[in-house]
Amino acid sequence: MPTVREATLELFRAHGMTTIFGNPGSTELPMLAGLPDDFTYILGLHELVVVGMADGYAQATGRPTHVNLHTAPGVGNAVGGIGNARANKAPLVITAGQQVRPQMTHEALLTNRDATIGPQPYVKWSHEPPRAQDVPGAIGRAIHHATLPPRGPAFVSIPMDDWNAEADEDRALNAQRRVVTGRAVPDPARLTQLAALLESARNPVLIAGPDIDASGGWHSAVALAEKQRLPVWASPGTASSRIGFPESHPNFVGVLPPAIGPLAQTLNGHDLLLVVGTYVFPYYPYMPGPLLPEGASLVAITSDPDEAARAPMGDAIVGDVALALAQLVELVGESDRPRPDPRPAPPAPAHADPMSGSEAMAVLADVWPDGGIAVAEIPSSASALRNRLRLSAPGSYYQSASGGLGFGICAAVGVQLAEPERPVVCVVGEGSAQYGITVLWTAAAYKVPVTFLVVRNAEYMILKWFSELEQVSGAPGLDLPGLDTAAVARAYGVPAETVSSREQLTEALRRAIPADDGPRLIEARVASGMWWE
Amino acid sequence: MPTVREATLELFRAHGMTTIFGNPGSTELPMLAGLPDDFTYILGLHELVVVGMADGYAQATGRPTHVNLHTAPGVGNAVGGIGNARANKAPLVITAGQQVRPQMTHEALLTNRDATIGPQPYVKWSHEPPRAQDVPGAIGRAIHHATLPPRGPAFVSIPMDDWNAEADEDRALNAQRRVVTGRAVPDPARLTQLAALLESARNPVLIAGPDIDASGGWHSAVALAEKQRLPVWASPGTASSRIGFPESHPNFVGVLPPAIGPLAQTLNGHDLLLVVGTYVFPYYPYMPGPLLPEGASLVAITSDPDEAARAPMGDAIVGDVALALAQLVELVGESDRPRPDPRPAPPAPAHADPMSGSEAMAVLADVWPDGGIAVAEIPSSASALRNRLRLSAPGSYYQSASGGLGFGICAAVGVQLAEPERPVVCVVGEGSAQYGITVLWTAAAYKVPVTFLVVRNAEYMILKWFSELEQVSGAPGLDLPGLDTAAVARAYGVPAETVSSREQLTEALRRAIPADDGPRLIEARVASGMWWE
Repeated sequence: MPTVREATLELFRAHGMTTIFGNPGSTELPMLAGLPDDFTYILGLHELVVVGMADGYAQATGRPTHVNLHTAPGVGNAVGGIGNARANKAPLVITAGQQVRPQMTHEALLTNRDATIGPQPYVKWSHEPPRAQDVPGAIGRAIHHATLPPRGPAFVSIPMDDWNAEADEDRALNAQRRVVTGRAVPDPARLTQLAALLESARNPVLIAGPDIDASGGWHSAVALAEKQRLPVWASPGTASSRIGFPESHPNFVGVLPPAIGPLAQTLNGHDLLLVVGTYVFPYYPYMPGPLLPEGASLVAITSDPDEAARAPMGDAIVGDVALALAQLVELVGESDRPRPDPRPAPPAPAHADPMSGSEAMAVLADVWPDGGIAVAEIPSSASALRNRLRLSAPGSYYQSASGGLGFGICAAVGVQLAEPERPVVCVVGEGSAQYGITVLWTAAAYKVPVTFLVVRNAEYMILKWFSELEQVSGAPGLDLPGLDTAAVARAYGVPAETVSSREQLTEALRRAIPADDGPRLIEARVASGMWWE
Repeated sequence: MPTVREATLELFRAHGMTTIFGNPGSTELPMLAGLPDDFTYILGLHELVVVGMADGYAQATGRPTHVNLHTAPGVGNAVGGIGNARANKAPLVITAGQQVRPQMTHEALLTNRDATIGPQPYVKWSHEPPRAQDVPGAIGRAIHHATLPPRGPAFVSIPMDDWNAEADEDRALNAQRRVVTGRAVPDPARLTQLAALLESARNPVLIAGPDIDASGGWHSAVALAEKQRLPVWASPGTASSRIGFPESHPNFVGVLPPAIGPLAQTLNGHDLLLVVGTYVFPYYPYMPGPLLPEGASLVAITSDPDEAARAPMGDAIVGDVALALAQLVELVGESDRPRPDPRPAPPAPAHADPMSGSEAMAVLADVWPDGGIAVAEIPSSASALRNRLRLSAPGSYYQSASGGLGFGICAAVGVQLAEPERPVVCVVGEGSAQYGITVLWTAAAYKVPVTFLVVRNAEYMILKWFSELEQVSGAPGLDLPGLDTAAVARAYGVPAETVSSREQLTEALRRAIPADDGPRLIEARVASGMWWE
């Protein structure tokens, strides 16, 4: 008769979940001790780091990914990261230890009191099995919840005395064998109606969101845009966890602004807005106005019932984004609408000293490697980065959809572990980097060859810009003097250098991409400012 | 007519809450912009750091302390710290920004969805006011919840468009003026009964917990122990957020072991266990046995109804610990029981190379400054630290009662800000330090003169010890090679050095205590092992 632990390890194997991201504590030792050789454990020194790495790994592999945390304090430290993963729709299966059952009711130390509430409201399912024998089935259920659309984190709390109990073999075997399928084609009648609407529209537009990439709908989106000659906007960058459409494609016209008034204004003249794979819309800041351009209707396709329900305008069709796009491509004919005007190349950035964020991003674009993946968390240069890199292959861009910080620097390590053949470049502000700074130790210890480009402006620039926008001033805590991320990186074992001119940055990036035998970090000092292009 | 913001700033002034610990985001700018000069803002680069600093400050001042966080992601990153603060009974008033009201229902970016759930289950009260005019009253209520016994964190989520709305002046003024008192003397009849029980007991013992210090009951506890000739044990170190009794006092006999069997065994022979200011008990690990020594009864005094309810054995009296102790001192007579045998001085530690944790703590005891405060998070040397420092003044020791990591290094900065005249020494393991490492930047930027003593053993020793105890081995992720905290400290602007012998450590500590013009860090390399004395 196998133990609960043996049965659970088999379950993980059955789902290909043999890489564990974790920060261990005593309550996790009964699961971790003597971990079999076919499992890999990636240690992070803080739980936000652990979850961030796993989030990147889960998104890049598309597979459920195991995160192991320490009971209450470990889960607590991870909540921000779990919130990011929920926004990013990353299929994380999070387990945490718990006191032994005989010491839970009186809350001995390290009891995870109300364990299922701790990671809320960010997990899709949260559970503490009532018996040891229910652990494998509960983790199986968490795997299915995490991977069913919309994907996202699920949580199981496991009393530490459960692992060595005898498993219920029949239940454990059934849990291991279950295959659960969640992708579904939307109602064919609705898709036929939508195809007709699209064909008959005078001036329709496609708004491409991150789930096009996540669902594998990239090529269908391109085919649809080409067949129907649709101009394509990217959904606002505020929640672009991924890029949904090749940004150097002739139909691609740009990234939508993230505020109500300007967004509707940008789409003025279109009579049909087809929104695919995002929510309607990740608005921020608040600039009021009509939600839709005069005379326009909107139809959104999403695999997320919550996104469908909460949109403030337009219709929605719930179903798998890739399958829906593939169907639409079949259903529509070739249009003879005029093709959209191709977007101009980005202008050469003006020279500044220290360089501007635009210059730094232009240099990055110049040296950008084939197959490169950008993991970004750089509010002040995000627009310039998108505009200059114009990434055009699937799975080439990740950022947090939550607006939270601490994802980027950690996720880059997870993405690199998931994609060992592709060069990963992590582009972060020095402010952003601090939320997950100890991931540099993990990158060095495991020789994960990410190239980190830290853009240093000595401030929380996005907040200064925001202050101006909101016509408020004099907020404290917006400056970051003396924050030397290159020195911190070296202290954690990552070779690092600081540059301040385009020439220096070009040379440094050429040397550091790909970072073949371990991580490299380049700190680029840039001028204060928001860099839009 | 004042704005909601003006009325709220007045409320903070009325409660002496003019120091704000925060990490800002756009949703907080309407509150923070143009912060009046009588307010001080302490910036942390990660939310666990922010809450940890505030926790130390709130405990050391005994006053409600304002923490300002960024909407959903900021609160998420803080949950572990909020859990620590709940365990530590720190009166934190946590505010966070929120989307503007017109963009919440459709969950625009940075909407704090289910805002009141995010910090659960760790806040005493969690609220989002239904109207802008309710903000000052809601924050007033949060202040009262935070400070009423048992103290702990309370949370208010504030839509960013509320701050500039017109306040309801009458309500705001009433909120500012309210004084709410929570300390209460337990039922006199019960105390009289307890006094009689104590006097008639053959061999009673006092078990002193952290709330003796927090409530201001230190001197009464000493008086009671002396009058009744009670031997005094400290409650188990696992949840010693503070020290409840002078540890060089002749009645003090040691720190109780934290497991059911050994704890009862240690107290064998006593017929009455008087437990004051802790819960019964912070057991960990699980070593079964009878809960009480043969023939013993237990009475606990606590200000926390939850602690009273959940104890697995004994009676409990709910009320203020200091007031109850003062009453008991009045009610009991002088006993003629034999005085307890004084505890021997700690033995001289054996020489080792690199030094042992015991040697490091012996050195620290040798150079310990008058009025010094220790903030500790060092599982492998915690016992040695307590045994060698034998701290004997109120407010001289802080650690997290939660068993979570990341409190110590951050709280030390908050304690130092609260106690500018007393030297604060933060004693942490290099593993613990990583959870809140960026607080070193804050300490340097604000010139907070904490002396950090980082004990480096290149491992999570407590977990290795635990593995042995549980007879499991081979867990991954227990070693921390190449983690050079001195280098990281220098990178963040904190002068730092590494030592590995007693002589070097002695000299380094003599130079670094007190750290007069800013923080200092000493990394002491120690041998692998658990250091009990």
